[in-house]
Amino acid sequence: MRRYSHDIIVIGGGAGGLSVASGCAQLGMKTALIEREHMGGDCLHYGCVPSKTLLHVAGQFAAAREVASLSRITAAAPQPDMMAINARITAVINTIAYHDSPQRFRSLGAEVFLGSGSFTLPNEVEVNGEHLSAKTIVIATGSRAAIPPIEGLAEAGYLTNRDVFSLPELPRSLAILGAGPIGVELGQAFSRLGSSVTIIDMAARILPRDDGEMSAIVSAQLEREGVHTIMNATAVRVAPGGRKKVIQLSVADGSGASRSQTVSADQILVAAGRQANTDSLNTAAAGLELGPRGYVPVDASLRSNVRHIYAVGDSNGTYPFTHVAGAEAAVVVRRAALHAGGRMNYRTVPWVSYTYPEIAHVGHSEESAAREGIRHRVVRQSFSGVDRAHAEAASEGLLKIIVDRRDRVLGVQIAAAGAGELLAPALHAVGRKWKLSAFRTAMTPYPTMSEVFGRAVSAQLAPKLFNPRARRILRALFRYRGSGPHAAASAAAHGE
Amino acid sequence: MRRYSHDIIVIGGGAGGLSVASGCAQLGMKTALIEREHMGGDCLHYGCVPSKTLLHVAGQFAAAREVASLSRITAAAPQPDMMAINARITAVINTIAYHDSPQRFRSLGAEVFLGSGSFTLPNEVEVNGEHLSAKTIVIATGSRAAIPPIEGLAEAGYLTNRDVFSLPELPRSLAILGAGPIGVELGQAFSRLGSSVTIIDMAARILPRDDGEMSAIVSAQLEREGVHTIMNATAVRVAPGGRKKVIQLSVADGSGASRSQTVSADQILVAAGRQANTDSLNTAAAGLELGPRGYVPVDASLRSNVRHIYAVGDSNGTYPFTHVAGAEAAVVVRRAALHAGGRMNYRTVPWVSYTYPEIAHVGHSEESAAREGIRHRVVRQSFSGVDRAHAEAASEGLLKIIVDRRDRVLGVQIAAAGAGELLAPALHAVGRKWKLSAFRTAMTPYPTMSEVFGRAVSAQLAPKLFNPRARRILRALFRYRGSGPHAAASAAAHGE
Repeated sequence: MRRYSHDIIVIGGGAGGLSVASGCAQLGMKTALIEREHMGGDCLHYGCVPSKTLLHVAGQFAAAREVASLSRITAAAPQPDMMAINARITAVINTIAYHDSPQRFRSLGAEVFLGSGSFTLPNEVEVNGEHLSAKTIVIATGSRAAIPPIEGLAEAGYLTNRDVFSLPELPRSLAILGAGPIGVELGQAFSRLGSSVTIIDMAARILPRDDGEMSAIVSAQLEREGVHTIMNATAVRVAPGGRKKVIQLSVADGSGASRSQTVSADQILVAAGRQANTDSLNTAAAGLELGPRGYVPVDASLRSNVRHIYAVGDSNGTYPFTHVAGAEAAVVVRRAALHAGGRMNYRTVPWVSYTYPEIAHVGHSEESAAREGIRHRVVRQSFSGVDRAHAEAASEGLLKIIVDRRDRVLGVQIAAAGAGELLAPALHAVGRKWKLSAFRTAMTPYPTMSEVFGRAVSAQLAPKLFNPRARRILRALFRYRGSGPHAAASAAAHGE
Repeated sequence: MRRYSHDIIVIGGGAGGLSVASGCAQLGMKTALIEREHMGGDCLHYGCVPSKTLLHVAGQFAAAREVASLSRITAAAPQPDMMAINARITAVINTIAYHDSPQRFRSLGAEVFLGSGSFTLPNEVEVNGEHLSAKTIVIATGSRAAIPPIEGLAEAGYLTNRDVFSLPELPRSLAILGAGPIGVELGQAFSRLGSSVTIIDMAARILPRDDGEMSAIVSAQLEREGVHTIMNATAVRVAPGGRKKVIQLSVADGSGASRSQTVSADQILVAAGRQANTDSLNTAAAGLELGPRGYVPVDASLRSNVRHIYAVGDSNGTYPFTHVAGAEAAVVVRRAALHAGGRMNYRTVPWVSYTYPEIAHVGHSEESAAREGIRHRVVRQSFSGVDRAHAEAASEGLLKIIVDRRDRVLGVQIAAAGAGELLAPALHAVGRKWKLSAFRTAMTPYPTMSEVFGRAVSAQLAPKLFNPRARRILRALFRYRGSGPHAAASAAAHGE
């Protein structure tokens, strides 16, 4: 039997790699962890953490604007101090970073190599001139912004998620290429801070992976806040125009023709999809096949075409979410460290677009249920029926529950302030196939946004309980009290 | 058989009475609904709805203050325009009020009497000179602020929840008698709007019905925000002192002695408990016994000592919550309209103090479990372990899960921004006696505050999984790969 230097080598110290390394090291495996830049990866340094901090700050600026309309003396709109905001972002990153530090991982028993890892053999990885070997190797190198090949873009210069959270000053105008979650979240945030924002995408609507009605709610809010969107648009060319960058667009109209349009902006943010960080891995030496945009295709047990090489997190291209990376890491730990089975179940993967209002999603949408030919029904409840939503000036939301013919919950979508938190019971409902009525079994505190679930169920049940036939039976019952058909009343009560 | 004018008479059109009347009318009962003031009751007009609207506005003022520290030019603190804020509150009430209007209830089939109802016989109620009779009568007359018998208070003048939401101008200083949820919520709100607030209570700590640690978290936040609290204090006398009202306090020190202290304020808000609105009901004519502070004692089926007279909502003194009134109303509808059984189960009643951060509670606390002699264990998780909390500058929170010896969830307390919403999965957990580990079965979106449950469970399981014995076994396994004790690894995996 060949002797390896390690039991497992993990390439990449982001959300996925750290979870694999932590689990394996604590289970006693001889673990090598390789990170070429910052432990914590994109999520901590250039993704979720700075983004949600910036979104929070931008939300406070929006609140300050609301306050102006409730105050006696209208002060001038506050001018964000980007240095103070960047300092806030850095402080949040640093607070969380300890948990991901090389020291902590060394204390857990992992050997940490700060350098760029690349394959030399299927079981061998070189880092800083050192050759490590292991029976199991995990690729967790993450992703980066994909840069579309637009003429003049590179020359004009652009921002990505790597530099947008540390701008020395607020761009007066910002054009964003891409209307996915990153583009829309940041577009709204910079608009709330005071930038004039234009979001551009080839898709027909913003947030195309979210339910259409949910995306329309956010779209209407963006319009109210003054964010400009140009859909069905392809950027053809970027040219410097005085002090601004000028993007020339080709915008499709309904009829198959297209027109030209230009957008000028101080800065361009590219948020038009991602690509895997696998280019410097020398994957050929391992015999590893890569898919489009460099992603590592894997099966449900996270194995690549080379059976001992796994890929987790963004690098496999399945879902670019930290919580999915964590779940995938757990599968790999079970397989690699415990020789147990384990497969990913992506059916219950939730996702949230952290716009205002947020859109949260788990399980089937109407569209996916229809695509898979599942007979289903949609239960809808507007937040205009939820008292707290009025108190919070946040009644523009919607809940949709997708149920099968037996009223089992297949999926839930919510557009509302705080939808990502409101989704919590739905995660259990979809995972355990609750019946719709289960949402109403729990007494929910008044007044909360969470009451939306109970409202949705009650609105479904009331017509059944209060239908004309039930009323006739009950009417008879009340006239001849005591002699009434008790069983019918009891049935009606259970119908409730 | 005696003929009654109605099947059921409901006295009081607040949250409880409206739910009874709505259910009974829609089920075809001949329903009389009597309301002497505003349909919707205290909750809509002088309680939850205006309160949560004011709290939201106050939160926006707090946000504006945070914005000032992130802006280049520090503007003066915004001065709230109370007329604009009152207009906002009125608009929210009016939006919700339609649902509770006499017209809507008449369209549901109820007969609505706008006047004061009082008993003339056990089965007879007089309203506006008209005599109504029914086999079943429901008291749902709610409660009002109890006014403590403090010398000079009436002469000096005071506010209660009835006038505090429509003040023509912001009091520069506000003394609040009572550190329960109403006193503390409003104290924080007025402080955030710019009042100098002092909260006074006989209790040793604020929010005495909430868990002590949770209340301490809010207490620390109040201190950071500059709200003054005086505990262990009894108001002895109120005297006018120039333009201010001066409250003389007797404050107990630890040793059994007490010292005098005075507090001067422009306004005094009395929030020192509630009393039932039963004084004008002429309960003697019905043979109804009343308890302390006018409450109607009832059993779990909401029946008073007079079997055909029920009391729901605040008037029975059990829990002063709209969601409890609604649940009690459902029991009465089942009993009165459907002749079905039905009893209140108060074990799963949640409550929320809508302070910042909020405190949310369901099921057993440590204290109640100990009092009932239930063997239990407390699982704790700070929000400092939740990344989103750092992004939101809201990491000062705490989750406590009370479990029995078999790890079944008995109760949950949360202090955190948005705790009232975060509680939602816990409502199901306590209601259905989930095992602790059930909180972790759902994949939770990152980064959300809701991750706190998964963190709590993981922190419990890690020591079991990563203990020295498990490590020794696994170490052996990795050395002699293939021949290792597969069963042990598998067990370890299931331990996860």
